[in-house]
Amino acid sequence: MFKKVLIANRGEIAVRIIRACKEMGIRTVAVYSEIDKEALHTQLADEAVCIGPAMPKDSYLNITNILSACVLTGADAIHPGFGFLSENSKFAKMCRQCNIKFIGPDHETIDFIGNKAKAREIMKFSGVPVVPGYEGEIRNEEHALELAKEIGYPIMIKASAGGGGKGIRIANNDEEFLMGFKTAKAEAKACFGDDNLYLEKFVQKPKHIEFQILADEYGNVIHLGERECSMQRKNQKVLEEAPSNVLTEELRSKMGEIAKKAALAVDYKNAGTIEFLFDKDNNFYFMEMNTRIQVEHPITEMITGVDLVKEQLRIASGEKLRYTQEDIKLKGHAIECRVNAEDPDHDFRPCPGKIEELCLPGGMGVRIDSAIFCGYKIPHCYDSMIAKVITFGNDRNEAIIKMNRALSEFAVGGVQTNINFELSILESEEFLKGEYDTSFLAEKMVKKNA
Amino acid sequence: MFKKVLIANRGEIAVRIIRACKEMGIRTVAVYSEIDKEALHTQLADEAVCIGPAMPKDSYLNITNILSACVLTGADAIHPGFGFLSENSKFAKMCRQCNIKFIGPDHETIDFIGNKAKAREIMKFSGVPVVPGYEGEIRNEEHALELAKEIGYPIMIKASAGGGGKGIRIANNDEEFLMGFKTAKAEAKACFGDDNLYLEKFVQKPKHIEFQILADEYGNVIHLGERECSMQRKNQKVLEEAPSNVLTEELRSKMGEIAKKAALAVDYKNAGTIEFLFDKDNNFYFMEMNTRIQVEHPITEMITGVDLVKEQLRIASGEKLRYTQEDIKLKGHAIECRVNAEDPDHDFRPCPGKIEELCLPGGMGVRIDSAIFCGYKIPHCYDSMIAKVITFGNDRNEAIIKMNRALSEFAVGGVQTNINFELSILESEEFLKGEYDTSFLAEKMVKKNA
Repeated sequence: MFKKVLIANRGEIAVRIIRACKEMGIRTVAVYSEIDKEALHTQLADEAVCIGPAMPKDSYLNITNILSACVLTGADAIHPGFGFLSENSKFAKMCRQCNIKFIGPDHETIDFIGNKAKAREIMKFSGVPVVPGYEGEIRNEEHALELAKEIGYPIMIKASAGGGGKGIRIANNDEEFLMGFKTAKAEAKACFGDDNLYLEKFVQKPKHIEFQILADEYGNVIHLGERECSMQRKNQKVLEEAPSNVLTEELRSKMGEIAKKAALAVDYKNAGTIEFLFDKDNNFYFMEMNTRIQVEHPITEMITGVDLVKEQLRIASGEKLRYTQEDIKLKGHAIECRVNAEDPDHDFRPCPGKIEELCLPGGMGVRIDSAIFCGYKIPHCYDSMIAKVITFGNDRNEAIIKMNRALSEFAVGGVQTNINFELSILESEEFLKGEYDTSFLAEKMVKKNA
Repeated sequence: MFKKVLIANRGEIAVRIIRACKEMGIRTVAVYSEIDKEALHTQLADEAVCIGPAMPKDSYLNITNILSACVLTGADAIHPGFGFLSENSKFAKMCRQCNIKFIGPDHETIDFIGNKAKAREIMKFSGVPVVPGYEGEIRNEEHALELAKEIGYPIMIKASAGGGGKGIRIANNDEEFLMGFKTAKAEAKACFGDDNLYLEKFVQKPKHIEFQILADEYGNVIHLGERECSMQRKNQKVLEEAPSNVLTEELRSKMGEIAKKAALAVDYKNAGTIEFLFDKDNNFYFMEMNTRIQVEHPITEMITGVDLVKEQLRIASGEKLRYTQEDIKLKGHAIECRVNAEDPDHDFRPCPGKIEELCLPGGMGVRIDSAIFCGYKIPHCYDSMIAKVITFGNDRNEAIIKMNRALSEFAVGGVQTNINFELSILESEEFLKGEYDTSFLAEKMVKKNA
């Protein structure tokens, strides 16, 4: 096992990783930006090295400084957490070159999966369902229409060179398709100087359901069930729960096996997540793979009893998986609410500032993953998430009740938070019934709130 | 179920009870002394009533004021927590007279069990092992010697009217016994004006092992395993763990059945604890019964998954037990450390004061039951316990490692605490081996520490 691990991150995930290391008897090195000198991760680690000014590019994204800190302190591995350099294949590669173990998959795998088109190709080839579509050359309108009929409506027409929603059209029939095809092509040409388009089946109001997998360096892969992550605002998850209440045991097993297949297809090692789009007819499609620990990993830990960060460390150090698929039993229900320093009444704008008062929830079935304390100044230059409240109950209802109770006693003074917004989600009929998809927050809650 | 419950207590246990009520949809009434106006329990309850000045006799022991608050707010039940009025049969009786449900056993049971001699008698009669002894009239020295031989050495000679160690002698053989008998008799006469003595087998270096029981109002009783509570300083528990690592499955089952027998013998209702002395030859003796929730109840909750306070509420409201003995499966290991505002370097004197800085531990497997927050002023007139840190692991070793980690990140500024003392216990060889008894702290740790 590693003797000393450097944590190339900040905030609650850095604290989370330090905790796992401490419990495993591994020494820890924190890296911190100038503004994070008093941060909890800086204080809790055995050693701490300043790696530059506050702006991420100067510190938490500064590969040279981080690798120097690693060499300086003699750390033999780096845990990248999530965000920052966690999915940066160049960083992973440089770690290897410096003979430092990057706690995550090989850089080749990160690279490969980071290319969405390549990842889609290999998944399709390996029998993992992907959203039906066509990315080849479209010869003309007739050819396009032929492809559209094959894929089936509704269809999304996207600019190959596009991004940010530009040049996207949705078509529900031939007529709309032909019209959309023409205008999208013109728009793509105008915007990107490239009129190539691609077609994809438009999955309406999908759920976002993801599977946690663990894979060791000897070809063993298991899945640890799913997380229901459809509660999103602008592609940011706000609340997650596990298990999903729309999966039957049969469907869970089927999707889990496919998630394992996806991991094997790319020779995956360490902890990873396979994200699926899940439609109302129980069809599911590979969306993407995250090659790192996720923000929402604790809900999987609560229902499986498996400490995912410790498993990451064990796998990276060359240990074989300690669990077989049969060992993984899902028990109870867990929910995570992300508490952010932001103002829901003003388009969720971040509200950095000093925490003047603080009372964290506690008691039975409540887990807090956080890096804040009373007097802590939330910097303006990082993510606004300040705490994760995770509750566990014997069933979904109990977990919801606990979350309601926990959030209602979570008191923060000095900065605004989204706690009341989270509470309003918990009270919504759709959430209570478990009938929500990725469109829910934008359509129902945010408008109501605005 | 009750509509509104008044909590006749303060501090973390009041918060604990409020949490259970909230999760069950029961409205809560806090009572508070003048000094507790800003206390967490006062803030978290739906309603709060001031019941008098700071001194316990004027507020938390003020039966009239508490019953008035109950009538005033229309609460239909009172939860007494632990300490204060929790084992006061007069209070329980007055609740009944006011048609308010006292959440605990009948006042007759409290009364009966409160009388140690009576309790001992009925336990003996019911087949519950008690420490061998003799409480009848001792005619003369020859009679005493005869009784001593019957009980077996070592023997404790106590003044019947005594207390506080006065007039106690330990004898290991006939000679010591006769000498001790004479001097104890003279001392008892001189101190208490009553030279009656009683004899009891002296259990050397016993462990304190207690069983949690739940009994409903229909004669159903279950036990929820044991708690190892030998880590005591001056009869105050400092650290508890469950399960005990000296009990075999067979012994656990045997002691558990006897604990149930003890509860049935006194027609017990609600949650209760049977305390046993446990010697190094695996003999165990009934010590006393606690007719209330215990400080250390969370460790039982962690290994059984049963919320004991919710069960208290359900039982008191007339529900039948929801669990059979077969439903109770012990899983994993839990430890509780009591964090006190006190100074271990100065005979553990209480250190009330204002909490200027606070960082509570968190993460996987850590539960915090507390009522403190940053800025909170710990009053001088109550118990010095400010938080309970409870950790859960798949086995004892994991729970210990988690406790070490949790306590090492628990930061309190402004008042002194016993956190380092708790950490030194965790590091002691005796604790690590699980080989400690009630004499351990006084003999090994406190001397070392002093």
